[in-house]
Amino acid sequence: MVDHLLGIEGLSKTEIHRYLDAAHSFVEVSERDIKKVPTLRGKTIIHVFFEPSTRTLSSFDIAGKRLSADTINISASSSSVKKGETLLDTVRTLESMNPDVLVIRHSESGAAHFAARNLTRSSVVNAGDGAHEHPTQALLDLLTLRQHFASSKRPIEGLRIGFVGDVRHSRVARSNIWAHIALGNEVRLIGPPTLVPMDFARAFNSPLVNVVHDLREGLRDLDVVVCLRMQLERQSEHFVPNLDEYSKEFCVSERLLREFAPSSVVLHPGPMNRGTEISGEVADGPRSLIHRQVNNGVAVRMAVLYLLARTLDPREEGSER
Amino acid sequence: MVDHLLGIEGLSKTEIHRYLDAAHSFVEVSERDIKKVPTLRGKTIIHVFFEPSTRTLSSFDIAGKRLSADTINISASSSSVKKGETLLDTVRTLESMNPDVLVIRHSESGAAHFAARNLTRSSVVNAGDGAHEHPTQALLDLLTLRQHFASSKRPIEGLRIGFVGDVRHSRVARSNIWAHIALGNEVRLIGPPTLVPMDFARAFNSPLVNVVHDLREGLRDLDVVVCLRMQLERQSEHFVPNLDEYSKEFCVSERLLREFAPSSVVLHPGPMNRGTEISGEVADGPRSLIHRQVNNGVAVRMAVLYLLARTLDPREEGSER
Amino acid sequence: MVDHLLGIEGLSKTEIHRYLDAAHSFVEVSERDIKKVPTLRGKTIIHVFFEPSTRTLSSFDIAGKRLSADTINISASSSSVKKGETLLDTVRTLESMNPDVLVIRHSESGAAHFAARNLTRSSVVNAGDGAHEHPTQALLDLLTLRQHFASSKRPIEGLRIGFVGDVRHSRVARSNIWAHIALGNEVRLIGPPTLVPMDFARAFNSPLVNVVHDLREGLRDLDVVVCLRMQLERQSEHFVPNLDEYSKEFCVSERLLREFAPSSVVLHPGPMNRGTEISGEVADGPRSLIHRQVNNGVAVRMAVLYLLARTLDPREEGSER
Repeated sequence: MVDHLLGIEGLSKTEIHRYLDAAHSFVEVSERDIKKVPTLRGKTIIHVFFEPSTRTLSSFDIAGKRLSADTINISASSSSVKKGETLLDTVRTLESMNPDVLVIRHSESGAAHFAARNLTRSSVVNAGDGAHEHPTQALLDLLTLRQHFASSKRPIEGLRIGFVGDVRHSRVARSNIWAHIALGNEVRLIGPPTLVPMDFARAFNSPLVNVVHDLREGLRDLDVVVCLRMQLERQSEHFVPNLDEYSKEFCVSERLLREFAPSSVVLHPGPMNRGTEISGEVADGPRSLIHRQVNNGVAVRMAVLYLLARTLDPREEGSER
Repeated sequence: MVDHLLGIEGLSKTEIHRYLDAAHSFVEVSERDIKKVPTLRGKTIIHVFFEPSTRTLSSFDIAGKRLSADTINISASSSSVKKGETLLDTVRTLESMNPDVLVIRHSESGAAHFAARNLTRSSVVNAGDGAHEHPTQALLDLLTLRQHFASSKRPIEGLRIGFVGDVRHSRVARSNIWAHIALGNEVRLIGPPTLVPMDFARAFNSPLVNVVHDLREGLRDLDVVVCLRMQLERQSEHFVPNLDEYSKEFCVSERLLREFAPSSVVLHPGPMNRGTEISGEVADGPRSLIHRQVNNGVAVRMAVLYLLARTLDPREEGSER
Repeated sequence: MVDHLLGIEGLSKTEIHRYLDAAHSFVEVSERDIKKVPTLRGKTIIHVFFEPSTRTLSSFDIAGKRLSADTINISASSSSVKKGETLLDTVRTLESMNPDVLVIRHSESGAAHFAARNLTRSSVVNAGDGAHEHPTQALLDLLTLRQHFASSKRPIEGLRIGFVGDVRHSRVARSNIWAHIALGNEVRLIGPPTLVPMDFARAFNSPLVNVVHDLREGLRDLDVVVCLRMQLERQSEHFVPNLDEYSKEFCVSERLLREFAPSSVVLHPGPMNRGTEISGEVADGPRSLIHRQVNNGVAVRMAVLYLLARTLDPREEGSER
């Protein structure tokens, strides 16, 4: 009976929309004077972050608190992991404190799945595992697109979306790609061959996913451009020769968007390196949905926590997976 | 319609007393068995501390919780600032999560003002910006004095107050000086020329502010002595030759107070270096109001958060600035 | 009227059972759908941890929140202690914020007692002071044993209990030993002479406490085996020659338990070093009560916080110490 959110891979279009529908109804809560509902009163949510995070952790924490849950934050730096305890012992120890949800961020791909397999009573939410998945980020990106395209009565099915930059190491891209495949959208992965290797795309085994190594060509006629964060350490790891050169070729600028994808909107998971992967003009301009993403992050996490941790009415249980 | 508390500079006597009046009414809440009022239920307060702090952060956090607000603490060490994000992006990202108040501490003067100028929906409270201002500390100092002098029916207007020590780098002194100028009080800045330069006083452009480089002369007939924290790194920065020598000349002792300012009371913003800027006898003696200051810190922060974050009755709005 | 929990030393059997009885009634709260009671609403609990901790801090934090108290966490790394403030000033400063309970962990033996002696209004709970005491850990161990032996209608008086490993540096062992002396239980301290010196046992001045330097002999006929965490730095401090050799002689394995203490149950305060002081087979096997310990940790801390911080009905006050 315990459900988890470990990744977008494997979710159906219906399941994705179920999260978005719930999130949609929570957006309004954060705009009220009294930004709080009693939904998860008496539930305990533990955030275990083995990697540092401001934005994702704050977003989950605010989401839990606005649902009236009790939230506990554990960071790796102060954790028993330092003392040599295994991940298994850590999560089992935490489960023994009867949390309803464990929200896990970890540098290893598969960490959240491993936790979920070994827990019996707590739900697990993957808040980012290595370069693997970051499902709540994909859901908030989708919610942002659904809101945007709703104004022109377009559904989020049938979009053309491009991911620009360090696709290879991006759990954000990976979760989003699975979602867009489920929605039937055309996905373009744009960047130099070191950051967008051909076999990366092949792993999704979908004709919808294509690789383009030229930014102009990649942007052409996109509805949505997702700029990915360039991590500065990539340079020393030789994935990019030099950040200046990189940004000359791959920084998403307003000039390029106007020419090649004039009606596109732009997303960025943050934190941004202005001038590296995205120009300040784009980030702050009218096609940027970036602050809307952050805003939706709280709503999406409220939805996920709600769907996992609420107490089901016994009569409903049959209809839940 | 969004109001901020960025500094004491520019506040009128009336505005200062408005904060103190509100704080006065909150002192009692922390003395109850049930130290909690529902005033800010459903409000979100984010503390973003780019400098470490125990006392100020705890005080704000307790204040927020006793008002029933949801509080989120973000420390620089775990923050996106590490990842190269600008202050602007950080505060805008946080604003997108719909906090009612952002409480900001930062090592740069003007950081809170910068944040306030760039936010449209969240109130900003300056919890210390570089050597510039620390307005809630000045307000809690004033509340402490108002309580003390009330017993002898003296108002806080007409006092003679001295700041002893590292005035130059002290945001506490600076915020207090602005307040005492607004109240019409005589202010003496006491310390060696390296720590109390003549042009520091001149910057306030007020005949009420004077510099004295001799402790005995400075203390004479003071009603209030504020001992400022000496930071140990000042020695390596050559502002003081040697802490031992410094304290021989400028440590505030009971013996000196008895001789030169016998009826004075003593404040210290903490944490104290006993034996450097204040003797243990003074710190723990009857003229010390230091623990009262900490106690009032919670009440003052409750007042500030209340005045900024409460939901106004529409009929009242016209009367608010 | 302010009470503290500083150690198990000096507690009577009745007092110990009073804590366990209260804890027993809180176990069930954490198993509800709504894991929250309003008991300590409006109370403030400050956790001041001068040593890092995940498990104990999370356990206290969850306990406080499930009692509806407001909890504040202060870690040494961000604390004024860094700025040279004394422990006395730190705890007095915190007391000035009107917490009902200060939960203190500190690397120095006696730190919690020192705090308690110098505070007048806040209750102090010792969450571990150096190698001295960790009373809530002993109470949760006892609760775990009481639950286990209740099924065979055995009381926790009359047990034979052994502590294996680094007894010398273990506040967990020390608190437990005082408890078992109060309960009249036979205590065996098992480990190499460097880690279990003869005069360690003598300090308890009780015929119930014995030292055994051979694991097989030590385990014989025990009802309860408590494996103590081996700290890796002990090797560089020359208390153990080599962890591999150490574990060959003192690692508690299922094979040994089956032969020498076949009906025993096993406790470990965590975090575990599997293969060093305890085999994985024992840790995960049917005689392990380790996860039950963690679970009971929350209940015991709820009980302790409740007994210290609840508002007494004036008519009851006379019956409280």
